[in-house]
Amino acid sequence: MDLERSPLARPFPQMPAIDGAVLRVARARYKNWDRADLTFAELAEGTSVAGVFTKSACASSEVELGREQVKKGTARALIVNAGNSNAFTGIRGREAVEQIMAQVSDALGCRAEEVFVSSTGVIGVPLPKDKARAGIAAVLETQPCDWEEAASAIGTTDTFTKAAGASAMIGETRVELAGIIKGSGMIAPDMATMLGYIFTDAKVEPAFLQEMLSKANDATYSCITVDGDTSTSDTVLAFATGKAGNAALSSWKDVGADAFYAALLSVCRELAQLVVRDGEGAQKFIEIAVSGAADDASARRVGLSIANSPLVKTAIAGGDANWGRVVMAVGKAGEPADRDRLSIGFGGTWAARDGQPLADYDEAPVAKHLEGQDIRIDVDLGMGDGRAVVWTCDLTHGYISINADYRS
Amino acid sequence: MDLERSPLARPFPQMPAIDGAVLRVARARYKNWDRADLTFAELAEGTSVAGVFTKSACASSEVELGREQVKKGTARALIVNAGNSNAFTGIRGREAVEQIMAQVSDALGCRAEEVFVSSTGVIGVPLPKDKARAGIAAVLETQPCDWEEAASAIGTTDTFTKAAGASAMIGETRVELAGIIKGSGMIAPDMATMLGYIFTDAKVEPAFLQEMLSKANDATYSCITVDGDTSTSDTVLAFATGKAGNAALSSWKDVGADAFYAALLSVCRELAQLVVRDGEGAQKFIEIAVSGAADDASARRVGLSIANSPLVKTAIAGGDANWGRVVMAVGKAGEPADRDRLSIGFGGTWAARDGQPLADYDEAPVAKHLEGQDIRIDVDLGMGDGRAVVWTCDLTHGYISINADYRS
Repeated sequence: MDLERSPLARPFPQMPAIDGAVLRVARARYKNWDRADLTFAELAEGTSVAGVFTKSACASSEVELGREQVKKGTARALIVNAGNSNAFTGIRGREAVEQIMAQVSDALGCRAEEVFVSSTGVIGVPLPKDKARAGIAAVLETQPCDWEEAASAIGTTDTFTKAAGASAMIGETRVELAGIIKGSGMIAPDMATMLGYIFTDAKVEPAFLQEMLSKANDATYSCITVDGDTSTSDTVLAFATGKAGNAALSSWKDVGADAFYAALLSVCRELAQLVVRDGEGAQKFIEIAVSGAADDASARRVGLSIANSPLVKTAIAGGDANWGRVVMAVGKAGEPADRDRLSIGFGGTWAARDGQPLADYDEAPVAKHLEGQDIRIDVDLGMGDGRAVVWTCDLTHGYISINADYRS
Repeated sequence: MDLERSPLARPFPQMPAIDGAVLRVARARYKNWDRADLTFAELAEGTSVAGVFTKSACASSEVELGREQVKKGTARALIVNAGNSNAFTGIRGREAVEQIMAQVSDALGCRAEEVFVSSTGVIGVPLPKDKARAGIAAVLETQPCDWEEAASAIGTTDTFTKAAGASAMIGETRVELAGIIKGSGMIAPDMATMLGYIFTDAKVEPAFLQEMLSKANDATYSCITVDGDTSTSDTVLAFATGKAGNAALSSWKDVGADAFYAALLSVCRELAQLVVRDGEGAQKFIEIAVSGAADDASARRVGLSIANSPLVKTAIAGGDANWGRVVMAVGKAGEPADRDRLSIGFGGTWAARDGQPLADYDEAPVAKHLEGQDIRIDVDLGMGDGRAVVWTCDLTHGYISINADYRS
């Protein structure tokens, strides 16, 4: 099944080099294909690591192990397997991951727990150990590659290659950040798991890196949805090699901490939005801004209820400013709301205020806005100060074709 | 937009007469159409009433009033308006409902709070008072009609007319139950709200009728989903006229209480399933049986997580026994689960047991089963004794066509 490049795709950006991170790719041929499907990042000694993982109760062995590994705080390598998620494979799947960790730690002379492994692809088939072993052996011998090759090698059903870069000043020291991501639903254990990796040459203590990544996650990866389905393998890891020579960041009070966080947040936001821009069947990118909620968490839940509503998503696909469906999605969110204080707008034009359609509602600018590719929905609950912005895409015949008409 | 009759439709059943309930319909012309769209049920003095309503925080005035009215326990009339949901219409919408209650209570010589009103159709347009007033006047003058005419008049985007009947023995007395329902998503504030009404000639105390209806609701209406979207107007009401002459039922200990509940449950289950069978774009009816959950409520939440998963629903549409997507949906439900105890089957054949695909899994009978119209998914969590059965339909191009391609 060949998928067309998403109409919402972005060109591959200029990316900074990250001192202390070396990328390589190889062909393990986890599927019957001839492409790079094993990605290896070698990280300098002393690299800090942080991670956020799927909340799925049926997570893969990679996720189970990763959750424990990040607590130790240091990393020396990342391996990403594409074409086989190794999820729901029991003890055999776990053995395959442990084999990879052992092989790489032997080669690098580090501890096994410093080797992070992710896998994405078909579910229920144990990752073949022989292919993994040969692939690792090959990748250790190969020449380093650039960000685009690595970003491409971690992809599966992605229709374009996704990356984002940024820089920040920590005191007098300039630090760089580079991130790559794959995913074309939130979701889809078949092939569309979201895996994201951020590399920086900044020196950041592991606990503070985790704090910043978790905070950024709340405002970015946790604010996107394609179809509300959550993968068993979703993973975002951040690696800080410390090669830039800045004074180590260990708390929000440190000089440059805010600047670094702003750069991290911008990379995470761009990566998260790129996943939505490759949403299965997506024709329109939708930003939903919720204000006036009881608190920020409530605002996000209301936003995601709207973003996950098939009726809202199909309405946008059809260019229909159907604010009644937005009312419905607010109502079902299970959050504090009051019909008579609710206001809804599209593209900066209010359609309904305080629980009633506007008498002088002018649909013309709204109809024009909905013809575009970038759609904005504003919802004011009129309850409190809680705010959130979430992102999704429309629901089209393309989604049905990808997920129903073709067999995996 | 003319919709084709659902391939999952059922013929209209034989229905019993209910002593003490008289049905009439009229043309209020709430929309620009020439069909009966106002339904009136006149109920004998002393009729008990119970109700369950949408949990939406943005419910219509009809629902807000109805929630209070059922607490009083008696009913003399039901009015159902089709073509205008009167939702999100503020004070003007509420005035329209109160006008209907006053007009009908004047005509019948009863209290206004004994007149129940439901409305379904377009959102955000106050129900026109003049059309309502003329429609009520007309319906009071018209001849009684049969169940099929009433069931048809409450419909909107329904592609077939839905009803179910049953009987039960209370001691030596035979009592009858008759139910009608409309809905073709769970949902869709445009036109697809679920409204259900059950009439019986049994004598049942209001508090006990409410207890039985709430219990039946937990096992039927609360176990169906088309797209996970919840209407602002969903309502199910039960009316017991008491004309059968049985000794009044007031608790589970009464003779015949279990028999009556079984009949009520069967009517509710059939009505709920008929809504799924008219799900927008549905080509397949899906029953999901969850066992081994921590408790029954947890089992239902896991079942609904599967039933609401676009990836599971599109897999079934494509005839794909994709148990990996079921694993994903179990994992994201937020309920106690353990990947290594999870078993999944289709049509009576296990595909995966205890967290791993079956070595001798025979896909042939599963593929055959998935070619049919009635699909069964079994999920055993292996955690406890909790069980639930939920029902949904597949997600097809038809759903997208109905909700995106056509404008309301």
